[in-house]
Amino acid sequence: MITSIITLPKIQNRLNDVERLMAAQSEGYEAALRDAFNILLSTGGKRIRPTIILLIGSMLGAEPDLTIILAASIELLHTATLVHDDLIDGALLRRGVPTLNSKWTPAATVLTGDFMFSCAAHLVAQTKSNEIVTIFSKTLLTIVNGEINQLFSSKCNLERSDYYRRIYSKTASLFETSSTTAAILGNVPHKEKESLHQFGYNLGMAFQIVDDVLDYVGSEESIGKPVGGDLRQGLITAPLLFYLENHPNDPDLAGFMDRNCPKDENKLAQIVEKIAYSDAIQQSLDESAKFADQAKKDLSAFDESPEKTALLEIADFIVNRKL
Amino acid sequence: MITSIITLPKIQNRLNDVERLMAAQSEGYEAALRDAFNILLSTGGKRIRPTIILLIGSMLGAEPDLTIILAASIELLHTATLVHDDLIDGALLRRGVPTLNSKWTPAATVLTGDFMFSCAAHLVAQTKSNEIVTIFSKTLLTIVNGEINQLFSSKCNLERSDYYRRIYSKTASLFETSSTTAAILGNVPHKEKESLHQFGYNLGMAFQIVDDVLDYVGSEESIGKPVGGDLRQGLITAPLLFYLENHPNDPDLAGFMDRNCPKDENKLAQIVEKIAYSDAIQQSLDESAKFADQAKKDLSAFDESPEKTALLEIADFIVNRKL
Repeated sequence: MITSIITLPKIQNRLNDVERLMAAQSEGYEAALRDAFNILLSTGGKRIRPTIILLIGSMLGAEPDLTIILAASIELLHTATLVHDDLIDGALLRRGVPTLNSKWTPAATVLTGDFMFSCAAHLVAQTKSNEIVTIFSKTLLTIVNGEINQLFSSKCNLERSDYYRRIYSKTASLFETSSTTAAILGNVPHKEKESLHQFGYNLGMAFQIVDDVLDYVGSEESIGKPVGGDLRQGLITAPLLFYLENHPNDPDLAGFMDRNCPKDENKLAQIVEKIAYSDAIQQSLDESAKFADQAKKDLSAFDESPEKTALLEIADFIVNRKL
Repeated sequence: MITSIITLPKIQNRLNDVERLMAAQSEGYEAALRDAFNILLSTGGKRIRPTIILLIGSMLGAEPDLTIILAASIELLHTATLVHDDLIDGALLRRGVPTLNSKWTPAATVLTGDFMFSCAAHLVAQTKSNEIVTIFSKTLLTIVNGEINQLFSSKCNLERSDYYRRIYSKTASLFETSSTTAAILGNVPHKEKESLHQFGYNLGMAFQIVDDVLDYVGSEESIGKPVGGDLRQGLITAPLLFYLENHPNDPDLAGFMDRNCPKDENKLAQIVEKIAYSDAIQQSLDESAKFADQAKKDLSAFDESPEKTALLEIADFIVNRKL
């Protein structure tokens, strides 16, 4: 996907280096851990965060080796949070393959996640930038705090601001960190760093809204996990938010507003379908497109370059993927 | 305990600052998280790692605020590993109080541990020393890898070297990191740093061997958890190692050499008592004393000072505690 829009062999080569560097982190450790580590990496995902880091780093003339280390660190941090996430949600599938926790004990899953966190921290220290290490640790706090909030709030919150806060913690914070830390390696003045910070933020928000749309309109094959997962967990995301704004008194939804209330699977499927065929989907996509457009504007101060073109393409890709 | 041997008001005050700094990390976060955080901190333990850091820092004239930040970071890292540890072992008590996982879901326990890791990482970044951040992340890798090895090895290993490797990962590595990072803040030459590195290593080894002895000879009240826990988990520690060296063919122990084999509680209690009244206990304590003596020798190059005296007293305290 992303790979098809990037025609920069330099970036492709560096992405391969990122893969190798990530895989190398488990070398010399327990065989079972190495296997889990390699499976988690090989089922991979789009490597969108490393791609952003490498593109920004290259656009700004940052030291390539440092951008590769940073990209590997951020992607491992991301993967580690997914491992603990799946354990917490009891998810059985991610990206179409069984999750670690569906096959392993909670103990082994927790430790594999911890190990990935440790690898990420170890790599980020190798950037030798105290500013980057500080941002990295702050982002980890933001992500974990977001998950804790989600875990402890039994009541569904219907405020759009609450939804935005949640997707910031979950996704946009690490996109923002990716672009900002790459800017730091590129040694740009404060104003440009701030623009790239905003670029990452807006890209991450756009990305997560589309993810949340796909949870309603995707197929199990395309999203790699059962549809309606958010609603099943009582999580209110963009499609449901807009649907409720349009139909505040829909009686079908009454039982779905308590997160601890068990959900009837047939009724859930009906509601998912109802929302999937409603205006709420286009409204959500429009919202995502606004963030993506803003992300593109955040790059306006930078000179034209193949890297900038690719970054703009990523913003388009994010809004249009898999629909 | 440790507090009684330290008559340095300066260090006492800084230890109080460490407590405050640790507690402050959860301010502004989810109420349930803050409660868990505060309970974990208030049931506290001996704060031996922060004490070592503050004493070495003060002995070397390091910037006090940085030693306080470092001490809080290392103690939070230690506490975080205990939270995940207890979850993994299914432990119900630690230091005489119910563990987090005995009251909370695995999800909440995992996330609280993750949050503490994040706080520790965030604090260590504030030391602004890349060398310290690197050592910190390496130590986290060592600790987690040690736990993974323990989790995946179903066979009991009767080699003394294996036991030493295990207690190094589990305990001595963080003691070593405490003394080494304090030495870095003190800006000492390589040779002194190496001596303090060895001091931490030897102190940590001595500490864990005594801990393992207490698991046989302590009372549930004094150790704050049921005795015989290691044997119950099929973990071979110093007392059992020495006992087996003295009685290689004791038929009672045959069923205890497979970690996955369920243990009969009556038989377990008998074996624990048999070992507790055997020579293996004194042999283990002698082994611990050897490490503690070496730790004291590691300080010989440093001028006399109240801090050095306190560090020497800690070495004695570690060997003689609660017996």
